[in-house]
Amino acid sequence: MPEVLVLGADGYTGWPLVCRLLRDGYDVHGIDHLEGRRYRGESVTPIDSHVERSYAADEVFDGEYTFQRLDVRHYHRLRDAISAVKPDTIVNLAQIPSAPYSMQGPYEAWEVQDNNVRGALNVLWALRETGQTDTHVVQLATMGEYGTPDEPLPEGFLPDGRPAPKQPGSFYHASKVQMTTNTLFASETWEIPVTEIYQGIVYGVETAATAGNPDLMTRFDVDATFGTVLNRFTAQAAAGEPLTVYGEGGQCRAMLSLQDCVQCLTLAIENPPGPYTAGRYPYRAINQFDGSYRVNNLATMIAEETDADIEHLDNPRAEDDSRHFYDPEREVLDELGYEAAKSLEDAFHETYHVVQRHVDRIDRDALRPSTTWQTDEDHMELVEGKHD
Amino acid sequence: MPEVLVLGADGYTGWPLVCRLLRDGYDVHGIDHLEGRRYRGESVTPIDSHVERSYAADEVFDGEYTFQRLDVRHYHRLRDAISAVKPDTIVNLAQIPSAPYSMQGPYEAWEVQDNNVRGALNVLWALRETGQTDTHVVQLATMGEYGTPDEPLPEGFLPDGRPAPKQPGSFYHASKVQMTTNTLFASETWEIPVTEIYQGIVYGVETAATAGNPDLMTRFDVDATFGTVLNRFTAQAAAGEPLTVYGEGGQCRAMLSLQDCVQCLTLAIENPPGPYTAGRYPYRAINQFDGSYRVNNLATMIAEETDADIEHLDNPRAEDDSRHFYDPEREVLDELGYEAAKSLEDAFHETYHVVQRHVDRIDRDALRPSTTWQTDEDHMELVEGKHD
Repeated sequence: MPEVLVLGADGYTGWPLVCRLLRDGYDVHGIDHLEGRRYRGESVTPIDSHVERSYAADEVFDGEYTFQRLDVRHYHRLRDAISAVKPDTIVNLAQIPSAPYSMQGPYEAWEVQDNNVRGALNVLWALRETGQTDTHVVQLATMGEYGTPDEPLPEGFLPDGRPAPKQPGSFYHASKVQMTTNTLFASETWEIPVTEIYQGIVYGVETAATAGNPDLMTRFDVDATFGTVLNRFTAQAAAGEPLTVYGEGGQCRAMLSLQDCVQCLTLAIENPPGPYTAGRYPYRAINQFDGSYRVNNLATMIAEETDADIEHLDNPRAEDDSRHFYDPEREVLDELGYEAAKSLEDAFHETYHVVQRHVDRIDRDALRPSTTWQTDEDHMELVEGKHD
Repeated sequence: MPEVLVLGADGYTGWPLVCRLLRDGYDVHGIDHLEGRRYRGESVTPIDSHVERSYAADEVFDGEYTFQRLDVRHYHRLRDAISAVKPDTIVNLAQIPSAPYSMQGPYEAWEVQDNNVRGALNVLWALRETGQTDTHVVQLATMGEYGTPDEPLPEGFLPDGRPAPKQPGSFYHASKVQMTTNTLFASETWEIPVTEIYQGIVYGVETAATAGNPDLMTRFDVDATFGTVLNRFTAQAAAGEPLTVYGEGGQCRAMLSLQDCVQCLTLAIENPPGPYTAGRYPYRAINQFDGSYRVNNLATMIAEETDADIEHLDNPRAEDDSRHFYDPEREVLDELGYEAAKSLEDAFHETYHVVQRHVDRIDRDALRPSTTWQTDEDHMELVEGKHD
């Protein structure tokens, strides 16, 4: 079977992807610096150490798993690992994935950009320097790179072939734009096949390969810094806390379940971009999401199911929280045969069930935002201006 | 008079700008880590140490000049300097400005992005954290961010208001895209007035404020890594070396003289963006160039004037060197009253005269490119494919 190198193998998405690939018989080499376990809060789901997870995976799955603790910012070590493993595919999930974290201060903003951009750059240079430019790179971008303009969100490129305009809403989202810029250039210049995944917001905790086996459980973050909106609402409902909606709650975002995220990544791995995919060789952009949802509608759905209260907070972010236009394209996934495995409602129920078992592990203080995008004065003006 | 903080005050553009501002009576605080004197080759023009330059400037000009050696990557030191100086305008020229340097290897690629992107990010955070968000930031982007698509190059934004698509041709150009992305976001979020200068290729060595005073001479790079195309051709002609044209030489680029570059920066400093300039507050994009020229035409012009030979080399870069389409917009500069002070021909003659005096200081080996964009195999295929 082909060998897949997963960077960020210990993460929320990384570990379930490793399990899925091992289940399907792939050999997988995981890389992670395991710092996510330090700089994030503790996972709401109890999770084993990475070594213990590996043993559990060995018992259950056919594929062979090897792991290496390594920081993707260290070029030489990463290059040597890539040179030794000679993977058919590298899946780069080794990013710090938090907009609020990147807005906490100058050091955090740069920590996010340094980690995310340098890691991706190092992968590309390592492939060039080791002569492995046939290796398929699958890299996580975000739908947030496009912002929320008053027109449909293209899939990577404008109709005339130029890269889509980028309007990131945080230094984290900007780091993803920077990864995209470097990666498109390197892919075209060095002819490295790349699939860049413009991913929507991921929710849920169970996947087909990990469900029912607590030793394979992935981490689950619900705090205002690292928890995505639906995961946070789920925890708030389980903990008897109000669902915290930012501003008017009209924000619309593309989303998909963790199960479908893993499914989509596997589809991309199994179907590398052919020559001149979408007019470009060898770079392919995929908008990866199942549906688009407004924050208010998610809150209402969960409130109805759980009797949770909804609390509107001043929006700590700089974003349009009115009922703005939102219409993302999604063509490539459908061509690859994507069909949703799990509805949002089903994923919510399943996740709610898991979180209820671990409700005492939720840090209630961390559910509320502690970082604002604006300076304090600006923020007050914004809040007052909103009611003019 | 207002106080201007110039980051990169010891550089090719920075020093003549400092002199121009001091001549006009501004007080100027210069910052530079002076590493450019180490990582570049020696300047073809003999230049004094920065301290000696400062004394020379003090004798000649009305404005007061102070200087601080400081690396813009060091957030706290930069913040403290900005807090102490409280400038009306910050001009950020503190970038490593070389595409070939950024393509030499993984460490050089990251050195360029780390220096350029982090420096710009630190300026923005420092203004936010010190409450000086009224300070006007003038920052150098590059026309190279747009690439060479088959349609006119917009001035910062598409007609619908989205940021222009970016197609950088090196990791250096990508660093400028990343500066733009971060800066536009921060400007809009924190309401920091920004003028971002999408600058063309600069040529020449004399400016009105420095001409005729050898103690005020700026540095002049002519090597294939740090010398821009017309400056390199000028040195090649003076040294009796062939003018090295990359590939077919059809590359068209926007250009302007150092004299006009300094003039344009001064116009931007004197006219900060008003509220809602170009529909956006407080971010303004300026395409800064005088005319567009094809490399072949520049080489022919110089060859005719000097009897130099022209030598076509395999193009070490990944770029279209056929007679491609090129039509950049330029509206804002004209609104600000820009008129060219120096024609390309006059700048060439003047520069040629200076370089002839220092022809023994030219490192002839460094005039020829030593870095290729492609892997060696790809490069050979490209060269062969070109003649199919």
